[in-house]
Amino acid sequence: MDVILQILLLLICAKLFGELVERAGYPALIGEVAAGILLGPTLLGWVTTNETIEIFADIGIIALLFISGAEMNLKSFLERRNVAVSTAVAGVLVPFAGGALLGYLLDFSQAETLFLAIALSITSIGVSVRILVDYKQLNTIVGTAIVSAAVLDDIIGIFLLGILSAVAMTGTTLAGDSISMGLLIAIVFLVLFVLIAPRALRWFFDLARKTETHEMVYSVAIILALASAWLSQTAGLHYSIGAFIAGLILGEQIRRDRLLFDSLMDFGFGFFVTIFFASIGLLFSFTLETFLSPYIIPLILVAIAGKIIGGYIGSIHFLTRAEALLVGLGMTPRGEIALVVAKVALVGGIIGSALFSAVTVMVIVTIIITPLLMKQGFIRAQITEKESS
Amino acid sequence: MDVILQILLLLICAKLFGELVERAGYPALIGEVAAGILLGPTLLGWVTTNETIEIFADIGIIALLFISGAEMNLKSFLERRNVAVSTAVAGVLVPFAGGALLGYLLDFSQAETLFLAIALSITSIGVSVRILVDYKQLNTIVGTAIVSAAVLDDIIGIFLLGILSAVAMTGTTLAGDSISMGLLIAIVFLVLFVLIAPRALRWFFDLARKTETHEMVYSVAIILALASAWLSQTAGLHYSIGAFIAGLILGEQIRRDRLLFDSLMDFGFGFFVTIFFASIGLLFSFTLETFLSPYIIPLILVAIAGKIIGGYIGSIHFLTRAEALLVGLGMTPRGEIALVVAKVALVGGIIGSALFSAVTVMVIVTIIITPLLMKQGFIRAQITEKESS
Repeated sequence: MDVILQILLLLICAKLFGELVERAGYPALIGEVAAGILLGPTLLGWVTTNETIEIFADIGIIALLFISGAEMNLKSFLERRNVAVSTAVAGVLVPFAGGALLGYLLDFSQAETLFLAIALSITSIGVSVRILVDYKQLNTIVGTAIVSAAVLDDIIGIFLLGILSAVAMTGTTLAGDSISMGLLIAIVFLVLFVLIAPRALRWFFDLARKTETHEMVYSVAIILALASAWLSQTAGLHYSIGAFIAGLILGEQIRRDRLLFDSLMDFGFGFFVTIFFASIGLLFSFTLETFLSPYIIPLILVAIAGKIIGGYIGSIHFLTRAEALLVGLGMTPRGEIALVVAKVALVGGIIGSALFSAVTVMVIVTIIITPLLMKQGFIRAQITEKESS
Repeated sequence: MDVILQILLLLICAKLFGELVERAGYPALIGEVAAGILLGPTLLGWVTTNETIEIFADIGIIALLFISGAEMNLKSFLERRNVAVSTAVAGVLVPFAGGALLGYLLDFSQAETLFLAIALSITSIGVSVRILVDYKQLNTIVGTAIVSAAVLDDIIGIFLLGILSAVAMTGTTLAGDSISMGLLIAIVFLVLFVLIAPRALRWFFDLARKTETHEMVYSVAIILALASAWLSQTAGLHYSIGAFIAGLILGEQIRRDRLLFDSLMDFGFGFFVTIFFASIGLLFSFTLETFLSPYIIPLILVAIAGKIIGGYIGSIHFLTRAEALLVGLGMTPRGEIALVVAKVALVGGIIGSALFSAVTVMVIVTIIITPLLMKQGFIRAQITEKESS
C-alpha cells in the first residue's frame, strides 16, 4: 500500500494546487508540477520516483497525447504541413545554435557543448499540448502549428539523440551508420504506420462497438493507444508520437461517442495525466550547489529565447506577428527528451551532476514559465484580432 | 515500456477471453482469470507478477468494491443485518471445521491443520461481488445477503489471521493479547469510520462538485476511494472494506451523476478490475507435483461444500431454500485472504511449497467454478419464484 499512498498524496496535492492555480487564471499543470516539487526530495521528501509512479506517468502522457489527437481536426492538422516543417526546423536550429554558443562562451569541452545544444533543441510535446488543452487553444491556427511542429521536432530529436549516444559510447561522432539506420527505421515505421494504421485501428474500434458493454469500447480505445505507443517506441520514436497519431486517426469516431470521449478525458485528466505532471515536479532536485551554478541563469535564458526566436522565424511567413510569437512561446517547454538526453550524457560521462541538475531545473522552469507568458500572448493576440476586425 | 507491454498483453487477452466467455452466457471474470493463467508462468510465461501489476490489481479491487458499494442500496443493505451475521458466522464455522477434519484425516500436524482450517474460512469479497455484478444480482435479496456476510467474514478473517501469525512467529497460540488488540483496533476503527466518514466523505464530494471541471468530481471520487481503502488497511482490515463502505456512503450522490457513475464503471471494469482478475490467473502455478498431490481434490471439495453448507445453514431461516443455496454458493470463492494466509504460513515454516501451491489451485478453482454453479442456481431460483407466485 506504500506506493498507493504515494500516488494518493500526489493526486490530492496536485488536484488541490491545480484548482488553486486555475482559479487564479492559469493552467492547472503549473499547480500539478508544484505539487510534485513540494512532495519530492528537495522539500518534504514524502514521495520519491519509483518504477510504478514512472509507469503511471507514462500512461499519463500516452493518454494525454491520445486524447489530444482525438480532439484535433485531422484535416486542418494535415493542411498545416508547411508551417509545421518550417517551424520545426527553425525551432530546433536556433536553440541548438544558442546552446553551442553558450557552451563556447562557458569554455565547455566539445562533447559538453554538443550535449548542451541537443538538450536545448527538443520541445516537450506533452507539456505544449497540455498548455493548449488548458487554454482551449488546441484547434486554433496557433495550436495546430505548435503541435504539428512538435511532432516533427521529436523526429529530429531521434537523430540528435542518436548522435549523442554515439558520442557517449565511442567518444567520437563517427558512428554515423547506426544513427542513419535508426532514423531510417523510424521513418519507415512512420510511413508504414500512417499507411496501415488507419484501416487497422478503425477496424478494431468498430469491432469493439459491436459488443454489448460500453466498457469494451473504452478498453479497446486504451488498448489501441497503448499498443500504438509501444510500436512507436519500438521503432525508436518517443511513445507519445504513436499515441498521438492513433488519437488523430480515431478522432472522428471517438468524438461521435460523447460518453466515451468524456470517460477518456476523466481517465486522463482526472487521474493519469495529473500524475504525469506531478511526477515531473518530483524530478526537481535543487541544492545550494545548483543555485550557485553559473550555468543556470544563462541556460534558462537561452532555452526560452532560443525557442521563441526559432518558432517565430519559422512561422512568421504563415501567421501574424502575434500568432508567430505565440507559436515560439508554445514550443518553449522542454521535458522528457531533454531529461533523457541529460541522463545519457551523465551515464556516458560527458557531463557532471551539476550540469545534469541544472538541466532538470531548466526543464521545470520552462514548463512553469511558458503558460504564464502565453497568457499574456493570448490576451494580446485577441486584442490584435479585435483591432484588425 | 516492458511493464506497459505486460499490462497491454493482460488487457488484450483478458478482454478477448472475457468477451468469449460472456457470449457463452457466463461472467467475463472467468475469461479474465483464464487469460492470466495462459500468459502466466505455468503456460506461456510472457507475464510475471511484479510490484506495478500488483498495484494495478490493488487499485482494481478498490475500484470494484467502491463501485459496487455505490451501486448498492444502503437502506436495504442495513436491513439485512440479521441474515448477514448468521450467514457470516455459519459460513466461517462450517469450512473451518471441514478444514480441521481434513487436516486430521490427512494426519497433518496441529499447526498445519490450523492453517488449513483458516485458509478455507474466508470468502473473497472481491470475487463474490464481481460475480453478482456480472449476473446483475447485486441488489437482490441474495446479493445483499452475500455481500453483507462477506464484509463480516473479513472481520472474522483478521482475527483468524492474527492467530495464525502468532503461531507462525511464536509456535504457540498464546499470543492472544496482540490478537485481541488487533481486533479491537479494527472494530474501533470501523465504529469511528461509520460515525465520522459519512459526513466527511459527503462534504468533500460536495466541495468537488462546486469546481468547474467534471474531472475534479471524478478525481475526488477516486481519492476518497483510495483514502478509505488506505485507512481500513492501516486499521488492520482488508483495504477493500474501506473502499466498499465509502462507496455505500457516497452511493446516492454518485448514482445521481450518471456521467460520473458511467465514467467510474469504465475506469474499473474497462481497465483496473480486468487487470485484477487477470493478475489472479498469474498466481496459478501448476506443476506435475501439484497435480499428483493427494491434498488437492479433497481440499477443493471441502472448500466448495463447506461454504455451500455453511451459507445455507446461516441463511435458511431468512430465505427460501433456493435462495439460501445461492447464498452458500455465492460465498464459495476464496481469494486474497486465503493467499495471504498461505503466504504467512509458508514464510513462517508451517507449511511446505506443495500445500502452498495446492491452496493457490483451490483459490483459482473456486473462483472459476462458483459462477458456473451459480448460473444453474439462478435459473432454478427463478423457476421456484415463478412456481410460488
